[in-house]
Amino acid sequence: MNTEVSKPSGSARSNIQWPAGKLCAAMITVDMDGESGILFSNPEAADHLDVMAQMAYGERTGVPRLLRIFKQRGIRATFFIPGFVADRWPDAVREVIDAGHEVAHHGYLHEYLTQVPGDAAEEQILMRGIDALERLTKKRPLGYRAPGFKMRHSTPALLAKHGFLYDSSLQDTDIPYRLLVDGEAGARSIIEIPVQWQLDDWLYYMALPSLRPGIALRDPKEVVNIWADEAQALKAEGGVFNLTLHPFCSGRAARAQGIDDLIGRLMDSDEVWLTTGTELAEHVQSQPLQPFFHRPVALNESGATRQDG
Amino acid sequence: MNTEVSKPSGSARSNIQWPAGKLCAAMITVDMDGESGILFSNPEAADHLDVMAQMAYGERTGVPRLLRIFKQRGIRATFFIPGFVADRWPDAVREVIDAGHEVAHHGYLHEYLTQVPGDAAEEQILMRGIDALERLTKKRPLGYRAPGFKMRHSTPALLAKHGFLYDSSLQDTDIPYRLLVDGEAGARSIIEIPVQWQLDDWLYYMALPSLRPGIALRDPKEVVNIWADEAQALKAEGGVFNLTLHPFCSGRAARAQGIDDLIGRLMDSDEVWLTTGTELAEHVQSQPLQPFFHRPVALNESGATRQDG
Amino acid sequence: MNTEVSKPSGSARSNIQWPAGKLCAAMITVDMDGESGILFSNPEAADHLDVMAQMAYGERTGVPRLLRIFKQRGIRATFFIPGFVADRWPDAVREVIDAGHEVAHHGYLHEYLTQVPGDAAEEQILMRGIDALERLTKKRPLGYRAPGFKMRHSTPALLAKHGFLYDSSLQDTDIPYRLLVDGEAGARSIIEIPVQWQLDDWLYYMALPSLRPGIALRDPKEVVNIWADEAQALKAEGGVFNLTLHPFCSGRAARAQGIDDLIGRLMDSDEVWLTTGTELAEHVQSQPLQPFFHRPVALNESGATRQDG
Amino acid sequence: MNTEVSKPSGSARSNIQWPAGKLCAAMITVDMDGESGILFSNPEAADHLDVMAQMAYGERTGVPRLLRIFKQRGIRATFFIPGFVADRWPDAVREVIDAGHEVAHHGYLHEYLTQVPGDAAEEQILMRGIDALERLTKKRPLGYRAPGFKMRHSTPALLAKHGFLYDSSLQDTDIPYRLLVDGEAGARSIIEIPVQWQLDDWLYYMALPSLRPGIALRDPKEVVNIWADEAQALKAEGGVFNLTLHPFCSGRAARAQGIDDLIGRLMDSDEVWLTTGTELAEHVQSQPLQPFFHRPVALNESGATRQDG
Repeated sequence: MNTEVSKPSGSARSNIQWPAGKLCAAMITVDMDGESGILFSNPEAADHLDVMAQMAYGERTGVPRLLRIFKQRGIRATFFIPGFVADRWPDAVREVIDAGHEVAHHGYLHEYLTQVPGDAAEEQILMRGIDALERLTKKRPLGYRAPGFKMRHSTPALLAKHGFLYDSSLQDTDIPYRLLVDGEAGARSIIEIPVQWQLDDWLYYMALPSLRPGIALRDPKEVVNIWADEAQALKAEGGVFNLTLHPFCSGRAARAQGIDDLIGRLMDSDEVWLTTGTELAEHVQSQPLQPFFHRPVALNESGATRQDG
Repeated sequence: MNTEVSKPSGSARSNIQWPAGKLCAAMITVDMDGESGILFSNPEAADHLDVMAQMAYGERTGVPRLLRIFKQRGIRATFFIPGFVADRWPDAVREVIDAGHEVAHHGYLHEYLTQVPGDAAEEQILMRGIDALERLTKKRPLGYRAPGFKMRHSTPALLAKHGFLYDSSLQDTDIPYRLLVDGEAGARSIIEIPVQWQLDDWLYYMALPSLRPGIALRDPKEVVNIWADEAQALKAEGGVFNLTLHPFCSGRAARAQGIDDLIGRLMDSDEVWLTTGTELAEHVQSQPLQPFFHRPVALNESGATRQDG
Repeated sequence: MNTEVSKPSGSARSNIQWPAGKLCAAMITVDMDGESGILFSNPEAADHLDVMAQMAYGERTGVPRLLRIFKQRGIRATFFIPGFVADRWPDAVREVIDAGHEVAHHGYLHEYLTQVPGDAAEEQILMRGIDALERLTKKRPLGYRAPGFKMRHSTPALLAKHGFLYDSSLQDTDIPYRLLVDGEAGARSIIEIPVQWQLDDWLYYMALPSLRPGIALRDPKEVVNIWADEAQALKAEGGVFNLTLHPFCSGRAARAQGIDDLIGRLMDSDEVWLTTGTELAEHVQSQPLQPFFHRPVALNESGATRQDG
Repeated sequence: MNTEVSKPSGSARSNIQWPAGKLCAAMITVDMDGESGILFSNPEAADHLDVMAQMAYGERTGVPRLLRIFKQRGIRATFFIPGFVADRWPDAVREVIDAGHEVAHHGYLHEYLTQVPGDAAEEQILMRGIDALERLTKKRPLGYRAPGFKMRHSTPALLAKHGFLYDSSLQDTDIPYRLLVDGEAGARSIIEIPVQWQLDDWLYYMALPSLRPGIALRDPKEVVNIWADEAQALKAEGGVFNLTLHPFCSGRAARAQGIDDLIGRLMDSDEVWLTTGTELAEHVQSQPLQPFFHRPVALNESGATRQDG
């Protein structure tokens, strides 16, 4: 394994070889957050029946609808599920498992790690989430996504320690890379499958006017066009199209039809490898991945710590 | 009546039988809030002539225009009216009544129940709203919508106690269900006719830049397309298209033309049952509705309270 | 003059007779705020060269461009100008006057009247604005628009006292009406020419990310379509299309082309009377206007003060 | 050189003569901010691996992609680079230099000058930024852009003192002008190449939901249409189309294709002079530029300080 920290390339074209005949990869991921998606930031919302019911749309209506679409399309998705949801909605989670989708880690109560008091608390959350998922899946999760994509510099080392194969939370590239957990030679690493806000339905569909004002609800046709154009552009470069859905958002009737339409567009081309997080991470492990350590910024009189060079 | 709490279904397709020849139901609802729509949160706005006049657009201009459209289309709508509006704008409310529309409950001063000090205060508001409406309609309201859709866990029991047939404030499904007021066997229930923010004109048209910054005003043609597509998608599943209009928003000239256009599109199909809240609730009472109790979230060391399973 | 307070009409169709051959009226108004548009709320911005320069785009670039367009189209507009701008940009204001446009009152430093300490302060601002305009126009302004459209219940009486013919700040109707200054029989009145946020470019084009976050900049073609559709809908009812432009917003190159395009669309029809505030107010004075007093809201145990009925 | 402060012109048509055959000028500028784009306002984000990685998308992925596009199109752009980025990402900056693009000043840590404690602090930042760039470019920067476009009234004098040829931060016109550093006869000056928020990708693409809520992500095709229409309108008047890109925003796959498309549209016409900041400023120095001093606003009893007249 090459652990030399790479220099930024003059070319963004991926040198990953995708499976035979494939030019790029795509993942449909579902952040199945249930009520936890709002309770960590707004614990008072536990007493708001309307907010709790709105979040439960995901488990009661959105997830079943998305599962039907995935089944009809014959695809497998990756579900990032907080332990809380496994405890509160075990039947809904079992339907996901029974349908053959990947279940991956997403905190316990959708905790924003940047607001967690320290490493011990973070590890406790990680273990509690693993336990809750394992009770239903009977196996350890291999994938991780930080709630809200929020991550501390110490998180990758924790993920490596607990046997995770990959993380899918960072936004620095369009292609998977080897995320080093520290800057030492021979540092441990996990696979990073990058995300981007532009491909997260939260930015287009999330409506909680009293708690999160200011989001403009969008026409699903417009949103699907934005996503399909990005998929097309990433295909030309061999990147990963990594879509993040929230079932109380994209599980709505016409929006779910949009997801179905998008999947159809992705599958129209035989050149897109539509797969799960673990299969993708396992494939790229044998590839010439760029190892990269995110060196924390420090400022002093002589300037900033170097990241490249 | 089946009061066994249902498990989440793998299918979102409704098993409700709609009236002969109908594939789905639709409601046009008007939250006729007048000045109360802003006064509960911003009592200081009582001294702002501009804000009071803007809210009064509903009663002075928007409602008359919408009533003309409903009359020309030959449809009946459901008006959720705070008691305050019945007291302040009795003639405007009488025009609604005289035109044959349903008048339903919407608080007294559009109170957000999640900010009300407790059960006694909530019940007082409920009774004051009933009284104000009854003075004009000469009958008790059967329908309820929580102002801002905001509801406490104790609200459904209060509604059942005061003889309400249905509520229309929650967002967990696309089809009506039997909302249990507690988790005990044989619990009382009311009918829930679910709503959704996406079908609320507030999210697209509400402009009060100094009090509620950050909303992007939308092209009525775009908004009507979003709504019509959602209606089409819900029709395919037998759900309820439940539109929420505010007359100071959708009562504007071109937007009201959009509403007229939308109603035309809904009526183009003989398969959409366009009706009022009470007629819809009475119809579905005889149907195999899923009873559901929204079990409050509690967290302890062993995990979250279960909702399903 | 009929001073009986009108009941809300079941019909929003105007019974105003517009000049021969005209079905409706339209006003292009320019709120020429200069730096005052931001200084009242953010006095610290006086030290921000970037913000001051951005606001000055109006006087340096936007107004000249709009004046060229108005001249080429052969139309007269109504400029609402804070006294501050007359003092700071007298040459720019003189160009407006010399081109034959109406100059009307818009506060001194664009003061939000709802934040002014009381009646004496409000009257002082009014007189200071009159003086500043009169120094350049050599006549008293007849029209008034409250900065930010924000108005106190006491404002109309002040306007009547100081000889104003009309106000253009309220949003309760689409047609001019006689605005009574109090609820007594024989109360004095001025003409109200109503506005609406939807027809204010601020909601679509205003970008000051650090001071007013969250506004989405819009495609001028989309904005012009929204406005043209509203004009069309108002024409069908005989209302007033009252457009509010800010020269540092709509004075930008492509947006100004949009304004030119919109004026062209308005003039394509001989049925639109495109005029100034004073001419419009003088015309409707002889018409069967609805007198209306905005009765302040008061709440007590027996309910709200009545507005109609 | 004419240092008489100009009066506002009745015509916005530029009297600048562009190079032979050219009707207008255009600049593609890249604000290559790296992590500094967020660290000045949110120093706590240094501990948020997710935010740091998202900002690093610019240096790791966006800049290389934009450089490929610029190379294929055969154009040179102007990169405004904080000193911090030169210290942290020297290899990425060297690639910009080696490709022949202009490197210009953008603060050290992207400091908002309106929040800097005083002139001495501001000058220190300026010098630190010059030093960091000079270490890589081996020459002093001639161009400056204030981070966030935020500038103090004292900034132009500092820029003149340190040998800058031009600034590109203000929004009062569409054509370059001579920016006087004070109001005295014979005052020193630099060239101002104006910008505008409408042509800044930040307003359309920037997504940091937890730090900067409320921005609606836009369809790149819509954004490119807005920009292309503005370029067309500015061409008709001989102005400058000055586009501001952030590589973590516009460097995304489909958005970068949009930039490529826009450049293609600009180049379709032989009449657009697509150039760098220094070449543009050097050209216009010999032209009949309007000198202008932004006189600070002062208010007293007799009114506001005059800007024109």
